[in-house]
Amino acid sequence: MSCGERGEVEEQVLKAIRPSRFQVRLLNRFYELVKSKLEACIEASGFKALIEAQGSFAKNTLLSDKWEVDVFILFEGVSDEWIHNESLKLVTRCLSGLPVIRRYAQHPYVTVVMNGLEADVVPTIRLEKPRPHAMGVERTPFHTRYVKSKLTPCLADEVRLLKSFLKGIGAYGAETHVGGFSGYLAELLVIKYGSFRGVLRAAARWNPEKRVYIDVEGVGDREYLEEKYKDSVVIVVDPVDPGRNAAAAVRLDKLALFILAARLYLEKPRKEFFHVYSGEQRGALKYRVDPSRLGVVLYKGALYSHPPESVWGRLYRSARLLAGELERMGFKVGRYWFHTDESSYGVIVVEVEEAELPPLEASRGPPAWTPRRSERFILKRLGEGMPVWVRDDGTLAAWKPRKVRSLGEAVAKASRSLPAPPGASVSYAGTLEGAGEPWRGIISREYLKSFPSWIASP
Amino acid sequence: MSCGERGEVEEQVLKAIRPSRFQVRLLNRFYELVKSKLEACIEASGFKALIEAQGSFAKNTLLSDKWEVDVFILFEGVSDEWIHNESLKLVTRCLSGLPVIRRYAQHPYVTVVMNGLEADVVPTIRLEKPRPHAMGVERTPFHTRYVKSKLTPCLADEVRLLKSFLKGIGAYGAETHVGGFSGYLAELLVIKYGSFRGVLRAAARWNPEKRVYIDVEGVGDREYLEEKYKDSVVIVVDPVDPGRNAAAAVRLDKLALFILAARLYLEKPRKEFFHVYSGEQRGALKYRVDPSRLGVVLYKGALYSHPPESVWGRLYRSARLLAGELERMGFKVGRYWFHTDESSYGVIVVEVEEAELPPLEASRGPPAWTPRRSERFILKRLGEGMPVWVRDDGTLAAWKPRKVRSLGEAVAKASRSLPAPPGASVSYAGTLEGAGEPWRGIISREYLKSFPSWIASP
Repeated sequence: MSCGERGEVEEQVLKAIRPSRFQVRLLNRFYELVKSKLEACIEASGFKALIEAQGSFAKNTLLSDKWEVDVFILFEGVSDEWIHNESLKLVTRCLSGLPVIRRYAQHPYVTVVMNGLEADVVPTIRLEKPRPHAMGVERTPFHTRYVKSKLTPCLADEVRLLKSFLKGIGAYGAETHVGGFSGYLAELLVIKYGSFRGVLRAAARWNPEKRVYIDVEGVGDREYLEEKYKDSVVIVVDPVDPGRNAAAAVRLDKLALFILAARLYLEKPRKEFFHVYSGEQRGALKYRVDPSRLGVVLYKGALYSHPPESVWGRLYRSARLLAGELERMGFKVGRYWFHTDESSYGVIVVEVEEAELPPLEASRGPPAWTPRRSERFILKRLGEGMPVWVRDDGTLAAWKPRKVRSLGEAVAKASRSLPAPPGASVSYAGTLEGAGEPWRGIISREYLKSFPSWIASP
Repeated sequence: MSCGERGEVEEQVLKAIRPSRFQVRLLNRFYELVKSKLEACIEASGFKALIEAQGSFAKNTLLSDKWEVDVFILFEGVSDEWIHNESLKLVTRCLSGLPVIRRYAQHPYVTVVMNGLEADVVPTIRLEKPRPHAMGVERTPFHTRYVKSKLTPCLADEVRLLKSFLKGIGAYGAETHVGGFSGYLAELLVIKYGSFRGVLRAAARWNPEKRVYIDVEGVGDREYLEEKYKDSVVIVVDPVDPGRNAAAAVRLDKLALFILAARLYLEKPRKEFFHVYSGEQRGALKYRVDPSRLGVVLYKGALYSHPPESVWGRLYRSARLLAGELERMGFKVGRYWFHTDESSYGVIVVEVEEAELPPLEASRGPPAWTPRRSERFILKRLGEGMPVWVRDDGTLAAWKPRKVRSLGEAVAKASRSLPAPPGASVSYAGTLEGAGEPWRGIISREYLKSFPSWIASP
């Protein structure tokens, strides 16, 4: 089957990312198993519900390394409160006998894990059309139906390419810690531009300084949406809910990343852009991870019992907070990074210019004309035996002996006020140098891989 | 003679800063000598002119360490052009036999130097009243007359106290390199507030965030002046020219300094605030000048043949430029300073946090979505073997090997593009550590003295 304008790289990548027949058959069977168990039990319990596959599995846009199905239970005649507070009891009971992890993000759901296969089972209300201010899961069935009605098998492969590309560059996912493109958004873009390359060609011309506005079905009220989504850098009208921006989660940095990657890829298509090949640093880099310049906080705990996005979200927040705190302490921060295996550990890393700050700090005080504040500053600094002067802008300044000079000490101190991922606590805080094996090796390798290897000389 | 509300400190200071009878007699004789030589010669040359003493000497507000008189030649019936281009020839000829240095700032003048006495001889046009947009020297005779009409001997001493105080804290002088209070402005403030302490009490309540507005004679049009002097932090209406702000030269930093000093002095009067006692560091300071952290450019040359304010002005500019350049190179600048003996050397100093920067720099690039600029950045950084990534704000970033890491090298490099004082050239550029004796000792001592010693615990 030939599908339009694919190059050699894309054909090769597709072979790697398209699920095998075996995989599809296995997932289908798993889905049927869960479905039949649920159907029988729910009916027997006196409830009326429709069981439907959703998400990538249902839309035929699944990637080969995902052994997952989304199973929705669309209840009739129940309230929101019942879904939120009671439904999981029924669902858990109905799935008894299967290994189940109970989870709760914005919406309650359970995950069935069996022989490496996963099914997220989500109870929700059956609706005729999405309600205004609907929660994400309410919209899912409508998204699935819309996409299924639009995607040919050819287009489904184009979606796979785009999703793999977005993953490869680190811009896949609408979760806070990513701020990138959801799977549904990738599907909408392929539907709009007709192919993976078509999307890249459009993206290469986007300019975030003017807002990007895309309306696949021509159903949006641009003025209304631009007002409602003032802070969004991209607006993509949701065909099943025209008052909604399907790209509201996309942040400036990830948009910029995608535009850059699109441009570089079109200039020179390479496999490193796609997620199955990304992360392999080429030999040309002289840069080596210097463990003395990496501040590290390592968390350990039962992360598996919490939704991965809550874990990632917390790590993202902590990493940013630590970077900010180190900046305030006088370190020049180059980059921050965070990672988790979604199971037993999470780690945040901040790379700074130097491991040890100089003994004196040029400290800035209040304006010299403010009576109480300036006297307090003067008293403090003189008490430390340091001279005070007035800067060009009329504020006080003084040399000040630094209390915390070493990166290790600074990270240890800052780590005490950082939010830990749910279910975890600090296992180590200091420089990577002091982390000890095997963590030093693991973190060092993962960190090096996190530099975008696809940014290469064209 | 008792003069109102003076404390013990002020009485003691006055004894030190009031010129002796001997000094006044000597200056008077010197003035008469210059005056009579000029009068005879100018008349003989066919010109009509009035010779008048001006400035502090004429107003009886001279300080004891100034052995200077200002002598103005007020010509009648000559043009501005003649003053600017021809007058100095006549003046120099008339003063032949006396040791004369010919100088030119905004206005031409000559300095007669004899036995430690100095007379600045300034040719200008005799006017009935100041012209609009008049040069400074045209206004001087009117200022002198106004102040003489207002100052009693008591008030003259109060002016001396205020001038010495302003000098002591480094806020005396309207020149660019000071940005402070002129002698005339000090006189106006004493006339307005009745005494040295009265001025301090007023200043202690000034708030530069709202503009300070003072009208001694009630002759100013506030709205007009506030519009005309939009950028001024203080407006003091000039009584002899109500459309002019006599405090236009005062910068925010020097205003802030004066407010702070006024407050601290009123809380606890001490001699260290006055110029004859300032600069003596008390023993309590633990701070020591660390010559490895001081960037120094030393200039040598015939500075004496140029107006001191040109020399100071250039040093001020160079010091600021060097501080900015070092900041750009990655050094954290604490303080910059400059100094000259107004004769043979000038020096600029920038004190930074550390003598040696780390090998890698977290370098910031253009927005990732800009086609050509971002590709250029990527090529450069990858060419250096360094990884590139995208920051939160969508701009590119990369580690970058620092070309210049040592303060000495950075100063030497930057010094090549700094403007040297007139008549001088770079004699040394590097760290103070490498400056060699006697300069290391001299600069180190002068620099330590430059920290405001009057900022002390109340």
